This record gives sequence, structure tokens and C-alpha cells, in this order.
Amino acid sequence: MPTAVSRFATPEVAGLPEDVRARILAVQEKSGFVPNVFLALARRPDEFRAFFAYHDALMEKKGGLSKAEREMIVVATSGANDCLYCVVAHGAILRIRAKNPRLGEQVATNYAKAEITERQRAMLDFALKVATRSAAIGDEDYAALDRHGFSDEDAWDIAAIAAMFAMSNRLANALGIRPNDEFYAMGR
Amino acid sequence: MPTAVSRFATPEVAGLPEDVRARILAVQEKSGFVPNVFLALARRPDEFRAFFAYHDALMEKKGGLSKAEREMIVVATSGANDCLYCVVAHGAILRIRAKNPRLGEQVATNYAKAEITERQRAMLDFALKVATRSAAIGDEDYAALDRHGFSDEDAWDIAAIAAMFAMSNRLANALGIRPNDEFYAMGR
Amino acid sequence: MPTAVSRFATPEVAGLPEDVRARILAVQEKSGFVPNVFLALARRPDEFRAFFAYHDALMEKKGGLSKAEREMIVVATSGANDCLYCVVAHGAILRIRAKNPRLGEQVATNYAKAEITERQRAMLDFALKVATRSAAIGDEDYAALDRHGFSDEDAWDIAAIAAMFAMSNRLANALGIRPNDEFYAMGR
Amino acid sequence: MPTAVSRFATPEVAGLPEDVRARILAVQEKSGFVPNVFLALARRPDEFRAFFAYHDALMEKKGGLSKAEREMIVVATSGANDCLYCVVAHGAILRIRAKNPRLGEQVATNYAKAEITERQRAMLDFALKVATRSAAIGDEDYAALDRHGFSDEDAWDIAAIAAMFAMSNRLANALGIRPNDEFYAMGR
Amino acid sequence: MPTAVSRFATPEVAGLPEDVRARILAVQEKSGFVPNVFLALARRPDEFRAFFAYHDALMEKKGGLSKAEREMIVVATSGANDCLYCVVAHGAILRIRAKNPRLGEQVATNYAKAEITERQRAMLDFALKVATRSAAIGDEDYAALDRHGFSDEDAWDIAAIAAMFAMSNRLANALGIRPNDEFYAMGR
Amino acid sequence: MPTAVSRFATPEVAGLPEDVRARILAVQEKSGFVPNVFLALARRPDEFRAFFAYHDALMEKKGGLSKAEREMIVVATSGANDCLYCVVAHGAILRIRAKNPRLGEQVATNYAKAEITERQRAMLDFALKVATRSAAIGDEDYAALDRHGFSDEDAWDIAAIAAMFAMSNRLANALGIRPNDEFYAMGR
Repeated sequence: MPTAVSRFATPEVAGLPEDVRARILAVQEKSGFVPNVFLALARRPDEFRAFFAYHDALMEKKGGLSKAEREMIVVATSGANDCLYCVVAHGAILRIRAKNPRLGEQVATNYAKAEITERQRAMLDFALKVATRSAAIGDEDYAALDRHGFSDEDAWDIAAIAAMFAMSNRLANALGIRPNDEFYAMGR
Repeated sequence: MPTAVSRFATPEVAGLPEDVRARILAVQEKSGFVPNVFLALARRPDEFRAFFAYHDALMEKKGGLSKAEREMIVVATSGANDCLYCVVAHGAILRIRAKNPRLGEQVATNYAKAEITERQRAMLDFALKVATRSAAIGDEDYAALDRHGFSDEDAWDIAAIAAMFAMSNRLANALGIRPNDEFYAMGR
Repeated sequence: MPTAVSRFATPEVAGLPEDVRARILAVQEKSGFVPNVFLALARRPDEFRAFFAYHDALMEKKGGLSKAEREMIVVATSGANDCLYCVVAHGAILRIRAKNPRLGEQVATNYAKAEITERQRAMLDFALKVATRSAAIGDEDYAALDRHGFSDEDAWDIAAIAAMFAMSNRLANALGIRPNDEFYAMGR
Repeated sequence: MPTAVSRFATPEVAGLPEDVRARILAVQEKSGFVPNVFLALARRPDEFRAFFAYHDALMEKKGGLSKAEREMIVVATSGANDCLYCVVAHGAILRIRAKNPRLGEQVATNYAKAEITERQRAMLDFALKVATRSAAIGDEDYAALDRHGFSDEDAWDIAAIAAMFAMSNRLANALGIRPNDEFYAMGR
Repeated sequence: MPTAVSRFATPEVAGLPEDVRARILAVQEKSGFVPNVFLALARRPDEFRAFFAYHDALMEKKGGLSKAEREMIVVATSGANDCLYCVVAHGAILRIRAKNPRLGEQVATNYAKAEITERQRAMLDFALKVATRSAAIGDEDYAALDRHGFSDEDAWDIAAIAAMFAMSNRLANALGIRPNDEFYAMGR
Repeated sequence: MPTAVSRFATPEVAGLPEDVRARILAVQEKSGFVPNVFLALARRPDEFRAFFAYHDALMEKKGGLSKAEREMIVVATSGANDCLYCVVAHGAILRIRAKNPRLGEQVATNYAKAEITERQRAMLDFALKVATRSAAIGDEDYAALDRHGFSDEDAWDIAAIAAMFAMSNRLANALGIRPNDEFYAMGR
């Protein structure tokens, strides 16, 4: 069983700046383990702070999208980018938040056949277009969201989450961040 | 001449949180105008702060890449993503930083024919692979960088800049952020 | 929880031709449930017989590839074809045959980062090329297999399995065959 | 003039199992030569039997599609897969069955400009989507067929033929099966 | 049997400018019919003259490529562009010039499996890269030609023929020029 | 600052055929410099003559498209083909003809966000389809142009310009024609 966190050496948690260390200990407390993305990015505290600040601003905020829906966006776009870390880690979170043990693989593989609503499918159509052909986004895409009851603020949320994980997928793929074994069994 | 900043209404600068406002006034002081990405993102201060914290952590830091080289990564990957805002704004910055009025269009259109070094071409080969096929990044890509004298820390920088602008391009495309007219003439 | 087998009505098992019924009862006996591909194809007994005859000829035969390796080919190519049924069903079988609860998602998402050997990676390189660009298969592809110790008979096996699941993926996608819920939890 | 059947050695017909030999002699009797796909696959009798059982179940059956229409599906999808064997062999069969010496090249190259009906064009739209983007098949594709008078059973036929030749094209490409010279002149 | 020349009305030959008419009569004299591209383009005499001047400059000139090889370039790139007119018309010319009734379909479908030399395959590799990814042409592509004995002038010829038929394919496709029935049977 | 015209040696202007030399001197007189495409193609006078005859027939003629609109077609399709020479040279001409210093980069990068009319956007939709997927051009594309007031003759013009620059882009890319430095500053 491989145990590397990523292609890069991982710093000792004890020697990390106080705020970075606190965040890592908090997630360990909550989850029972430290997801490797925390350990990998801790090598560069400024990037760690910006990354998780952005993450929290998009994933923990109030708004028209439920937390499970936010994770659907992450999983569907990560599947399109073939990002193993994000598919596995966020697939687990999606299973838990949606209380559906099948949803991770469904949304990662082909959300058109997933156990989701028509409205959620429209949300993912928009997210995938942002992920794969963002230059083609236009009025008709906003109108399609509107027809399913999404506000323009919701559209921003969907776009921003798809955009942030466009970054996250590329980081995880290029730095070779390995998904922790714990994720595979969560929420089954 | 169109004047909209983006698809979304722009907040009054006067009413923004102090730190956001200070950042905007500083860039206006330095550049003579406020690039639209600042005004567009100011609508959501938490995302504004995280975005520019990430930007600064990658673009303003010390390291093996010159500031012009960092901009080359931004312009080449933004060209691949057909992001008008980033091609125009960062094309201008690249012209200035590289002191070459031709480099913006060259790198955005086809960096293989740009007035850059072999080493810079290798850097952009890696960056473009992160931008467009990150799941295929492997040992041989790190080895190719190494042959041109790039350290693993440099590789992280290249990957992280390409990844951050994967996000930025998608945000600008999806939110419809318009490049300020001022950029087109800068550095000619 | 959806329960449809596919877009098409499913025949009563009791009314099926004896050999088709026997095959279905045998798989039910062995697995505890009837995978939906059996019920969906039973609607057309001649196609059912040919499909499973082909399947058995490739997946149950002796040869240089282990049963787990054959399933790796199925899962990797089904991932490339975004086939939810095959990713879920054969992901489960792969987990069981390889005795590795992580391997299904790894191979379906990005086999380059899966917990497999270099030799298995070369096998999947060949299989994926058959699945996605078969017209480009040439001497160098056979030579690459040979360097990893695969015989020409092994090459045929890899090609034929990738080819058969090119068919199977398209059938499952076009007929809308739903993966049974039981698969998701198997081999965890 | 090359004479190899495929990359693999061809067995002596005399030594083949009785049923395989009989099938080969029958096609020779009917066509005046043995198409190379029979000789190539005869190397593995179980796969030979399953392949032709599937072929016959789809291509020789009764149903809403004429035999010429079935061949159109084969030729159009084989063209999309750049499969020389299937384009040449089934192009010949199509010319004969449709009694049109131009139809083989037309359907293989661009069926949108072929001498076929609007209904047949809709049939090929569905078939090509199964061949190239099957995960995207949905209600609207079945509805489009229905508007041209195709039943759901016809839809299954179209999908299954496209799927079977997805397999056949990959086999012929990967095993390097050479089209017999006789095919080129048939039906002109 | 359809008889339209293209989407556009065809001018009376009698009323055409003298040089255009002479060219058309000459080709009719030589071939026994007037290929539709002559009739379609005659609608615009200036474009007709420039098109055939370019054609003759590339296809009738002396140089390192035989006339059959020039036609191979046309047929292979036209196949990649799905241009029915050029595949059918130049497939016929290729069969005649190469004295091989199989070569048209082989080169149009998959030149890697055609009855051509290694040198001709290298020529078509270059031509296809010009046709489909010309921005990536670089030193290594010229070097590959050189290894097969092609001079830089030959490289220009290959590139220019591929480029001219990039134009011709798009014209024929967009104007809907129909291949004359006579072509299908020529050179069989 | 690189000064090569292309990969190929450039002939002395003094030794060129009279008509070729006259054309080159005329453009020098008018522009103040000789665009490199003239010097590069002069190496082969027959191709030079045919190329510019075609160019003039399409770009200098009367008709429903303004000269600026013709340049938009050139720039948008050249952007899609990543042709540095054509993007830079025709971007300059477009800025001048449209009297808009921003239009070159806008149309080359993403014409959907350029400062153009809806009618011009429809024109470029057609042109880009000719450039990238011409086999799919059909009745509906002509109808879309008609809805914006374009005649069938205009459609021919758009298609022919897109087709001619499909050729020109491939020539410039494959021969390595370098844009003159003068173009970058023109029309700003």
C-alpha cells in the first residue's frame, strides 16, 4: 500500500506556522485523519492559506446551493479532469452530504445518469461547460439556469466552484497528491 | 465603446471593506486605472481576498522564475483557454516585464514561434500540459524540466501558476469580465 | 432509489428460453442478485447468447493475463467511455479479484496513478489505444507489450477485451442499463 | 500485392473444428472467396463462434431496418473509426444491397451528403452518436428516431449494430486484418 | 440519381469568359466529362482562374514527388477533412496514376495500412500534420522528411499541396459540390 | 530581434520576375515595408501569382461584406489555427480597417466577446464552422446567415475567405513565415 503524500516531501506538522498547524489539527480532529491535500500544500504556507480561504469562501458559505450540490459540482468537474485525488476525496464527502452511497461514482462517471434532480442536472451542465469550454459561456447558459430557478448569484457560485476545482484538479494531478486510503470507505 | 465591467453589477468602491478598498486604490495609484478583475471580484470580498492572496503568493514571490516568465505562463495558458480578459491584461504586463512589444501576441497565439529561449519553451510545454491534460503529467515531464535546469520547486511554481489561471480564465470567461481599454496600448 | 433495469421493459425470467433462464439463475445463485445486463439483454435471447459467449471466451479463458488484469482492462476502457454500468459493475469485480478496495475508482479515473505494476500500466496503455484510437495501432504498440513480457497471444487478449467492452459500453449507454445497487458496496 | 490475412498466422482451414470450417466453406461457396475476417478469427474458434453468432443475430434478423440500412450503419461507423477492413468489405456489401455503386464511399466519407433518405440520415445520426459519444445518448435521441418512424426496437437494432461494429472495427484495426482484394471491385 | 453540381446555380458554359470556357472544354475533351468543381467555380471566373493556377503550379510541376504521390497527399488530407468531392474525384485520379485500384479507399481511410512505401508514409505523416495541426510543425518534422530522402523543396511541395486542399476541401464542403458519378468507376 | 523571413532562403527582389517584383515594390510603397509572406512566396513565382490572385479576388472584390468584415473572417479563423503570421499581420489590417485598436486581439482570442454586431457574429459562426468542421455545413448554416441578411453570394464569400486562409495559415505555419515587426504597432 503506497503511503507517499505527493511527489514532494511533506513538512513536519510540528514545525508549521501556527495557523496552518491549527487548521491541520482541526481537520484531523474532525475526520480522524489528515487529508493529503493539507499535508501537501502545507509545504508552502502562503499558498495553503489562500487555497483554503478560497475553498471556504465557496464551499462553506450560505446561498442557493446545498452543501451536497456544491460537492456534486466538485465531483463532476473532477471526473472530467481525471483527477483521482478529487474524485476520491470529494466523492466521499458527496456520499456523506447527500446520504447516498452511490452518488460519488455516478456523478464522477456520468452525471446524466445519476440519481439527481433535473435542476441539479442543469446545474452540472453549466458547471461542466465552465470546466471544459468556458469561453463559450453566454446568455443562453445563464437563461438555462434561470429556467431551473437559479439566481445570478447561484450562477456565480456554480462557476466559481467549477473554476476553483479546475485549479485544484490541476494542482493535485501535477503535484501527484495521493488520496488517503480512508476516503474510499467513507459514506458507503 | 462598451464600458461594462462584467455581467454582474459592480459595487461602489467607497462602500467596500477597508482592505479591499485599499487594494483597489493602490492598484489605481500604480497603474492609473483599476483593472476590471478587481472591480468584478470586489462584489464578493472573501473571494476577492483569497484570489489576490493566491495571486500574490504565486506571482510576487522569489524563486527560479523571473516575473516575465511567470507572465509567459499566464499568457500562454490563457490563450489556450481563449480567455480574452487574461490574454489582454497579462499580455500587456508581459510586454512590459519582458520589454518586448511583440511578446504578448506571440505567446498567446503560438509560443513555439515566440521570441523566447529553449528553456522558456520547455517551461511553457509543462505549463500547457498542466493547463490542458494535467492527468497525464508524470515523471518524464519533471525530467524534461530538470534537463533545462528547473528545480522541483520551479516545477511547482509553473504548475501552480498554470493551475491558478485555469481558475482565473474560467472565472473571467463565465462572469464575462471585460478587459479595460487601457491594457491594449500598454507596453507597445 | 430508482429500480428500472434499462429503458426497455424486462421480460419475466420464468418465460425465457431454458438456456437463458439457466444462465440467469446461475448468476443469481452465485452473486445473490441478477446483474441488470443479464435482464436487459434477455429481451433478445440470440443477442444474449452471443454476448455472453463472447464474454466468457475472453474473460474466463486461460492465458497470460490474470482475471484481475482482464477486469482492469474493462474498467479502464469503460472509464474512458463514461459507461456508468460497466464502471460500477466491473469496478466491483476488480476490487474483489484484485483484493484491493481502492482499485476500482483508481483504474476508472486515472490508471496512471493506480496501485498497479509497470507491466499492467503497459497493458492498459495498449488497451486504451485500442479503445480510443485503434486505427493508429502499429508495430511499436506490439513491441511495447513485448518489452513487458506480453506475448502476441496476450496482445490479442488485451485488444479483444478492449474491443468487446467498446461494444458493451455503447450498449449499456444507449440502452440505459442501470447498475444494480448491490455493486456499489461489493469488495470494499 | 500484399497477401497477409492479419498480423497473426492463419490456421489451416482443414484443421479447424467442423462448425468453423463449415461456416468458412459456406461463405466461400457463396462469395467465391473467404473474407479475411473469417480466416483471422478462426485462430480462436470460441471467439469466431461468438462473433458470428452476434453478427448474424443483428444483421440477418427480421425487423424495421432493411439489410441495406444495416450495412449503412456499419459503413458510416466504420468510417468514423478509420477501419479499412470494414469500410472496404462492408462498403462492397452496401453497394450490392442498395444497388448503388456510389453509396459505399459516400456513406464512409460523409453520410450527410450521401444519396439516402432523411429517415436514413436520422438513423445514421443516432448510430454515429452511439459510436462516438454513447454516454450522451438520451431521451431526445430516441425521440428524434421516433419522429422518423423508428420504433424502440429499431432503436435497439441501430444501437446494437453500431456497438457491435465498435468492437469489430477495433479488432480489425488492432489485429491488422487486411481487406481481401476482391471487395474493392464488388458492386461497382 | 442526383444531378445538381452544387448548392449554387451553374452558369452556361457558352457564356463563360473565353479562357474559362477553354479550360472546361479541354478537361471535357481529356476526361469525357466536366468535373463538377470546374462548373461550380466557373460561376466566379476570377476565383476559377486563381484556383486552377494554384492547382497547376502544385500538381503539374516537376519535382521530387511523383504525380501519384501528390494525389496521395490530396486523398489522405481530404479523407481527414471528410470531403466527399475530393475523396471521390482524387481517389479516382490516384487509382489511375498509381495503377492500383485499391489505393483510393486505402489512403482515404487509413494510409498507415495502405499499399505504399515507408517513404510515402513519412510524406503523409507530414502532410496530415500540416492538414490538422500545422501550428505544431517544427524542426523535427523537416528532419523526419530528410531521413527519408526528401529535400526542403519537397517539404514545401508536401506542405503546399496539403494547404491547398485544406482550402479545396472546405470550398467543396461548404458550397456542396457533388462528385460526378463518372469518378466512382474510374481506375477500378 | 529575429530577422529571418521564413525557414527558406529569400530570393533577391532584384532578380525576381517583373510582375512579382512590381507587386512587391507596390506593397512596399504603400505600407513602408514588405510583409514577409510576399518575400517568402516569391521564391516560387507561380505559386506567388496564384496566391495573390486568389487573395485579391476574395479580399478586394465588391460585395455584401465590408473590407473590415473580410479581415474579421481572416483573423478569427487564423486564431483558431494558431497562425502567428496571420493573426499579427491581419490583426493589424483589421485594426486599421475597423478603426478600432482593440479588435485584432478580441477577434483572434474570442470573437464572441468582441466589439462587433450580432450580424458579424453570425458571419463568424459560419466562417469558423467552415474553418474547423466544414463537412458539417448544411442548410441550417445558410439559413442562419439568411436570417441576418446575408445573401447566398455573401455566404460564398465568407466560405471562400475562410477556406483561403485555411490554406494560408497552413502555409505560414509549415514554412515558418515570421510576422514583420512593423505589424505589431500598426493601428494602435
